[in-house]
Amino acid sequence: MTAKSWVPVPEGSHFPVQNLPYGVFAPPGAEPRVGVAIGEHVLDLAAALDDDVFARPSLNAFMAQGRERWQQVRAAVTALLTDEAHRAQVEPALHRIAEVRLLLPFEVADYVDFYASEHHATNIGRMFRPDSAALTPNWKHLPIGYHGRAGTVVVSDTPVVRPNGQRQPVAGEDLPGFGPSLRLDIEAEVGFVVGVGSELGTPVPVADFEQHVFGVCLVNDWSARDIQAWEYVPLGPFLGKSFATSVSPWIVPLDALAQARTAPPARDHELRPYLRDDADWGLDLAMEVRLNGHPVSRPPFASMYWTAAQQLAHMTVNGASLRTGDLYASGTVSGPEAGQRGSLMELSWGGRDKIALPDGSVRTFLEDGDEVAITATAPGADGTVIGFGSVTGRIRPAPEVR
Amino acid sequence: MTAKSWVPVPEGSHFPVQNLPYGVFAPPGAEPRVGVAIGEHVLDLAAALDDDVFARPSLNAFMAQGRERWQQVRAAVTALLTDEAHRAQVEPALHRIAEVRLLLPFEVADYVDFYASEHHATNIGRMFRPDSAALTPNWKHLPIGYHGRAGTVVVSDTPVVRPNGQRQPVAGEDLPGFGPSLRLDIEAEVGFVVGVGSELGTPVPVADFEQHVFGVCLVNDWSARDIQAWEYVPLGPFLGKSFATSVSPWIVPLDALAQARTAPPARDHELRPYLRDDADWGLDLAMEVRLNGHPVSRPPFASMYWTAAQQLAHMTVNGASLRTGDLYASGTVSGPEAGQRGSLMELSWGGRDKIALPDGSVRTFLEDGDEVAITATAPGADGTVIGFGSVTGRIRPAPEVR
Repeated sequence: MTAKSWVPVPEGSHFPVQNLPYGVFAPPGAEPRVGVAIGEHVLDLAAALDDDVFARPSLNAFMAQGRERWQQVRAAVTALLTDEAHRAQVEPALHRIAEVRLLLPFEVADYVDFYASEHHATNIGRMFRPDSAALTPNWKHLPIGYHGRAGTVVVSDTPVVRPNGQRQPVAGEDLPGFGPSLRLDIEAEVGFVVGVGSELGTPVPVADFEQHVFGVCLVNDWSARDIQAWEYVPLGPFLGKSFATSVSPWIVPLDALAQARTAPPARDHELRPYLRDDADWGLDLAMEVRLNGHPVSRPPFASMYWTAAQQLAHMTVNGASLRTGDLYASGTVSGPEAGQRGSLMELSWGGRDKIALPDGSVRTFLEDGDEVAITATAPGADGTVIGFGSVTGRIRPAPEVR
Repeated sequence: MTAKSWVPVPEGSHFPVQNLPYGVFAPPGAEPRVGVAIGEHVLDLAAALDDDVFARPSLNAFMAQGRERWQQVRAAVTALLTDEAHRAQVEPALHRIAEVRLLLPFEVADYVDFYASEHHATNIGRMFRPDSAALTPNWKHLPIGYHGRAGTVVVSDTPVVRPNGQRQPVAGEDLPGFGPSLRLDIEAEVGFVVGVGSELGTPVPVADFEQHVFGVCLVNDWSARDIQAWEYVPLGPFLGKSFATSVSPWIVPLDALAQARTAPPARDHELRPYLRDDADWGLDLAMEVRLNGHPVSRPPFASMYWTAAQQLAHMTVNGASLRTGDLYASGTVSGPEAGQRGSLMELSWGGRDKIALPDGSVRTFLEDGDEVAITATAPGADGTVIGFGSVTGRIRPAPEVR
């Protein structure tokens, strides 16, 4: 039997009762608190469950309570929203999503960005390092990643200010160029949010993934390709990325994604034991990137070479500890086909090809005023569709800097 | 007249009344709180100033109050510790440093590591990239940096567990090696702690350095060179660094370093206006690295090519915001001479040369049980010496991981 909520869930909604993603919202004139999305509503958990852990402006305290508690709360919320008997009690705790402010759902501890799509890494390698092999020799032996700036992770709908920065000197010039980025780009990614931390000095095995990771969101890792290209050798991306990283307001619990789990691609090399996974943590998420409302790409997350469980094991194999609120992102999701690429850099092939939009405009990189929205859906329980909502951002002009 | 404290300050102490560095300490059986070091004592500020902002386990709340307030508190503490009239009132708030626990002095928001020593970057470039120019083309145009792991910044005296990790396949092998790092190293650095944050989208000019940066500490950015060498192309260091970064327990206020300010080295290229500095923010710190008690290097911080004021301006020129508790480190401090190199990688020239210690032992990289201490002193007011105490760590064996 298909579980169904007494709260109306419109056809095509991202938030059936099989999903129940967590977020932080502020009703008009009230303090931020934790809620769960259902159809076009958000349920105030502090009110519905009479528990102060949800009367806070972030999910962190709840996330730190661990998997058993996450499952209890999910079961309790499911019961409240499916059994009509609770309706009179619960209804006052429902708010229309359209009438509340959605806030950053968790305090970001450390932010790590991986690089787990073979198609993306191959495309970028061809463009950034045309004289070398597209994939570096380490790529299929370990999930490559780096730390990003946690302090500039913002919630969806936060405006994104075009960054100023240095770029490669033009031929014949001694000095690097400087000014607003001329190659402002997106990266369509999936983010994993750590609930339960770990001890310094103690690696977290692949098999413990579900004990630590609370849920999944969408990430747009905005990237200034001209700034990045000039700065990134030898220590990696810095200012080309650190100006903003947007996340979706809803964190989908791992338990909502049981039907989305799938085997990752076959491995080309034998992996070191700490990276071997018995459980399939590939995820069949169908992503879509829209530029000013027009779909420009449909990246398939199931094509990612490295899984989030492997990334967690890799990130901690050196003894690095995890904290509640750590966010790690998949890296740009690009599939094998041209219409499946998760960045404009790839879609325009480094600016060579114009991306034509149905309104007659063309783009290579982003212009001021452009709006990008990334969405995703996945198969859910009872034949439903689990949605991630969207991560959206609009570009504002750069400030004047000399 | 030389200001002098009624608290005894032994000859050679790092903490005369001209210094007054801040830390967080816990007396036996009591909660952590903010203190100021004076001679061999720490002054409990919550007790001495009757102000709750200091009755906390971190400096963050006080640091967020801004420069005017920092100067008021410094003046008030100076008055309390120099005027005998306050002795009876203040003495009960003094604890012997040897009898308290020193804790991480601030909650680290984001951690950025720069690469600002020309001598270090040249040495490392020669070893890591022998077929290219030692300095990358961008090096003298911008302060290169990257984000590190804030969650693994630990206070001095925290044991450092040798990391496990992958390393380059040996000749003739298909698979990378794996196991405890064979090239565990130090990086002797100076850290800058942000007190006052900034708005997303608004760059912080070089001239605002003193409004944002609260103080200075010592940093040992432990590095596993074999892990780093295999992983770092193309996205920079990750697990080779993220297992631990140690900081000294005392944060020296910028105002204690007025006499240490010095002109940075002459620039080889004209700089973009956002990096031009009128005020001299080079700092004449004499550092010393001791391995198992034996001095092995004396890096001169005054030789750094980029200043902390330039690094702050660069880090925010793209609109990235600052937060209270952001830590940014200088990068390894190496002078032009062999005895001035701030890493074992350079001192042993990539493991080629043995470093002989006076006890008859030799080292290339660190062995289990080794202890490294980094200290620094600078000229202070009234002809005194301002000390930074030390950042110390001892290596523990790696756990078993397959």
